[in-house]
Amino acid sequence: MPISLGELAERFDCELIGDPDVVIDGVGSLTNAGSNDLSFLSGSAFKKQLSSTQAAAVILCADDADDAPGTALINDNPYACYARMAAVICPPPVYEPGAHASSVVAATATVAKTAHIAANAIVEDGATIGDSSYIGPGTVVGPGCVVGKDCRLHANVTFVRDVVTGDRCIFHSGSVVGADGFGNAMTPDGWVKVPQVGGVRIGNDVEIGSSTTVDCGAIDDTIIANGVRLDNQIQIGHNVHLGEHTAIAASAAVAGSTHIGDRCLLAGLVGVAGHVKICDDVTIQGKGMVSKDITEPGVYASNFPVEDARTWNRRVAIFRRLDTLLSRVSKLEKKSK
Amino acid sequence: MPISLGELAERFDCELIGDPDVVIDGVGSLTNAGSNDLSFLSGSAFKKQLSSTQAAAVILCADDADDAPGTALINDNPYACYARMAAVICPPPVYEPGAHASSVVAATATVAKTAHIAANAIVEDGATIGDSSYIGPGTVVGPGCVVGKDCRLHANVTFVRDVVTGDRCIFHSGSVVGADGFGNAMTPDGWVKVPQVGGVRIGNDVEIGSSTTVDCGAIDDTIIANGVRLDNQIQIGHNVHLGEHTAIAASAAVAGSTHIGDRCLLAGLVGVAGHVKICDDVTIQGKGMVSKDITEPGVYASNFPVEDARTWNRRVAIFRRLDTLLSRVSKLEKKSK
Amino acid sequence: MPISLGELAERFDCELIGDPDVVIDGVGSLTNAGSNDLSFLSGSAFKKQLSSTQAAAVILCADDADDAPGTALINDNPYACYARMAAVICPPPVYEPGAHASSVVAATATVAKTAHIAANAIVEDGATIGDSSYIGPGTVVGPGCVVGKDCRLHANVTFVRDVVTGDRCIFHSGSVVGADGFGNAMTPDGWVKVPQVGGVRIGNDVEIGSSTTVDCGAIDDTIIANGVRLDNQIQIGHNVHLGEHTAIAASAAVAGSTHIGDRCLLAGLVGVAGHVKICDDVTIQGKGMVSKDITEPGVYASNFPVEDARTWNRRVAIFRRLDTLLSRVSKLEKKSK
Repeated sequence: MPISLGELAERFDCELIGDPDVVIDGVGSLTNAGSNDLSFLSGSAFKKQLSSTQAAAVILCADDADDAPGTALINDNPYACYARMAAVICPPPVYEPGAHASSVVAATATVAKTAHIAANAIVEDGATIGDSSYIGPGTVVGPGCVVGKDCRLHANVTFVRDVVTGDRCIFHSGSVVGADGFGNAMTPDGWVKVPQVGGVRIGNDVEIGSSTTVDCGAIDDTIIANGVRLDNQIQIGHNVHLGEHTAIAASAAVAGSTHIGDRCLLAGLVGVAGHVKICDDVTIQGKGMVSKDITEPGVYASNFPVEDARTWNRRVAIFRRLDTLLSRVSKLEKKSK
Repeated sequence: MPISLGELAERFDCELIGDPDVVIDGVGSLTNAGSNDLSFLSGSAFKKQLSSTQAAAVILCADDADDAPGTALINDNPYACYARMAAVICPPPVYEPGAHASSVVAATATVAKTAHIAANAIVEDGATIGDSSYIGPGTVVGPGCVVGKDCRLHANVTFVRDVVTGDRCIFHSGSVVGADGFGNAMTPDGWVKVPQVGGVRIGNDVEIGSSTTVDCGAIDDTIIANGVRLDNQIQIGHNVHLGEHTAIAASAAVAGSTHIGDRCLLAGLVGVAGHVKICDDVTIQGKGMVSKDITEPGVYASNFPVEDARTWNRRVAIFRRLDTLLSRVSKLEKKSK
Repeated sequence: MPISLGELAERFDCELIGDPDVVIDGVGSLTNAGSNDLSFLSGSAFKKQLSSTQAAAVILCADDADDAPGTALINDNPYACYARMAAVICPPPVYEPGAHASSVVAATATVAKTAHIAANAIVEDGATIGDSSYIGPGTVVGPGCVVGKDCRLHANVTFVRDVVTGDRCIFHSGSVVGADGFGNAMTPDGWVKVPQVGGVRIGNDVEIGSSTTVDCGAIDDTIIANGVRLDNQIQIGHNVHLGEHTAIAASAAVAGSTHIGDRCLLAGLVGVAGHVKICDDVTIQGKGMVSKDITEPGVYASNFPVEDARTWNRRVAIFRRLDTLLSRVSKLEKKSK
């Protein structure tokens, strides 16, 4: 949607350096932006791209204002400011209210008049779809699920059963919410399945990535609080609690009954064991493994970065002889006394 | 389904301490159970919750019987006993036989009269669906697949082709069984795809989690034996063999042609290389990496738990100077001789 | 498709030792091949199976020719030769041109006459499907997507939007291409979603595995070059570039804006951080973690293989006392001066 720089500056509380009548109709990276595009500078690594950018305007913070090549929007948080402006310039698609002829909506389901049910989507018994929500093609909303207002379930999403969401949530394609948790009791005859009877409760403004899975609770519910952001390929086990504004990067896994606090950040491929408590404001670096409670906010890690394989293998070999090294040192200490 | 404590005790071989006429109609955790709910004590960590529980009855083992606050069911394996009782109290939904009008069943497919084919489900050429099995909405059963009796393929499951299952198997939403394995031969012109012509054979009582993928064999079949339990987001490569009652937790990956024995346990995010043999009764702890054969039953690990990142980084730096340390110690030893 | 050994030898440039009129109608592993099956020897580990094979013919290299038990096809690259011959003997299924009655094709979509749109597949506004391409059951091709010629999108694949593929690409079930990348800006009120407006550009001869996810670009496009092979359960973040013929094994994750060169190999469960550059011809071994640029071709690793858990835990304990060990050695050195 085309919009003038003047209107953008006013609406999002920026100082504008340049012509307020310039009209923006797209966004671009500093290197690839066209002459009607808005761009932004976030992070000093990209500063050298500023001088050659063709962007109509660049959002940057006051400290970098002198380096702006031309028209600039000054804001304390250029990345967030860009995010908000981009949502205006490139708004998500708008869907006509109504259900596609090929969709299947159960007679006992309640679908808001302003909701859009796409081709081959399925809304099962007793499910509820809130105002202006979008149920994408091939998506299944299972029995008893409640989708809030202004939600977007993209194509081929599955809500298995008893999932309740707040408003303005986004679920990307291939995500599965509310499937049975992994509950098995060993017996002399093999595993016995433990019925999973809890549901999933999701707050407002939650976004869940492609192929991410959030299991239903074993007895009580699995809880995803307001503002949580989950990337792709993530596993959230039964009865996990994710606190407000916690964000988890791709391919991480959180085992059952673990409680993660507010504003935590888990990087990619992090694993968290079951029945663990992580307090608020904890960051776990990539591939870290959390196997017991974390009670202090801070940054935690347990990842080794790659090295040349020959070097690495030599280190592993030395690591395996550390106890010998330890006793050699002890022997030397005794001798030297 | 409501049921009296007396009937539960008799049917599942428990000693009942309390009134046999009390009727149970739900299940609950010790902390949240209501006055008609059954609960259980499994693991001493939860013992302190016993005194305040509102549950109608608690399943526990004889040693804990004295701590039961009121009505109790005594059993050697409270968790398995709970699992079996919960399956009676909260049975899975029952589906009417027949195929939904929107489903597409190939003329050459064979579907048992007692099977349920849900909305927009697809059963392709030559596929067979056994008695009382459930094919969920949006689920695809590909050409030549055979689904046994009493199986449950939840919504949006995909059986690609030539998958044969035993009875009482459960496949959760988003799982994909029988897709091509990863077979590529390098040539001067790039990769050549190796046709994957094997199938997948699955035993009885197997459960496969959401978004878990089990590839078809390259030539011979991929084998999942009776009673195997796979959590979510797991990758099982072509020609893998998983032995009976082996259970694998979320986000683990088993590469092609690997043979895992009976009753093995792989924790979350474990990786197993290809062409490896793991004997029976092996447990691999979270994030462990198996790159060669394991011939002795037991517990194996290779995971570092997280630490404060500054501490961790210091350790990594020292680790990288271990060869220097080694030579310093050798020098000291020479001197001290 | 039955074919004579003579024709195979001529077509794929092999020396044939044996009767050219023998007809092959299947393939088999050395141990399980039947008397009309073609087999191959690739890797010395399988050499001992040669003498007892029942295969009609075995492909092997000249050095192994003396060990051939009977009829043999001699080729420098037996595995690639097998791949090409198997594609003739066991060709992929052929689909009738046309769209199934239950599929939903938007009026503004362009579908080649020779393309096959399977049951319940969906082709959305403005999408294009090229000659002889196959859109599997339940698969969704979102708005503005362009599928090249001779492509195969298996069942329940999702192209979200603005995905453009080359020719002869294969997408396995459950894969999701073109969903929003993980872009979030923190503010005092929580996360603000950063609109993801880029697309995904995919070259020719690319194969993408089950449940693998490839995100659209944040602003510019995500790029998958010609000949790339991705296994299952892989995450490719926004604006990643994967160079030609790069292959990635299952459950690996590549974070946003990372640039991986040509002919790289990433093993299973490898993690690559965002904004990293990996040059051509780099191999990362299983579970390795790449957190900064790699500028030299070669093999890299950071994985510890499992050990008996008690042994492993002892090593971790020693690892945690390495700084103490360091200072003990320093003390000894001072003393010994």
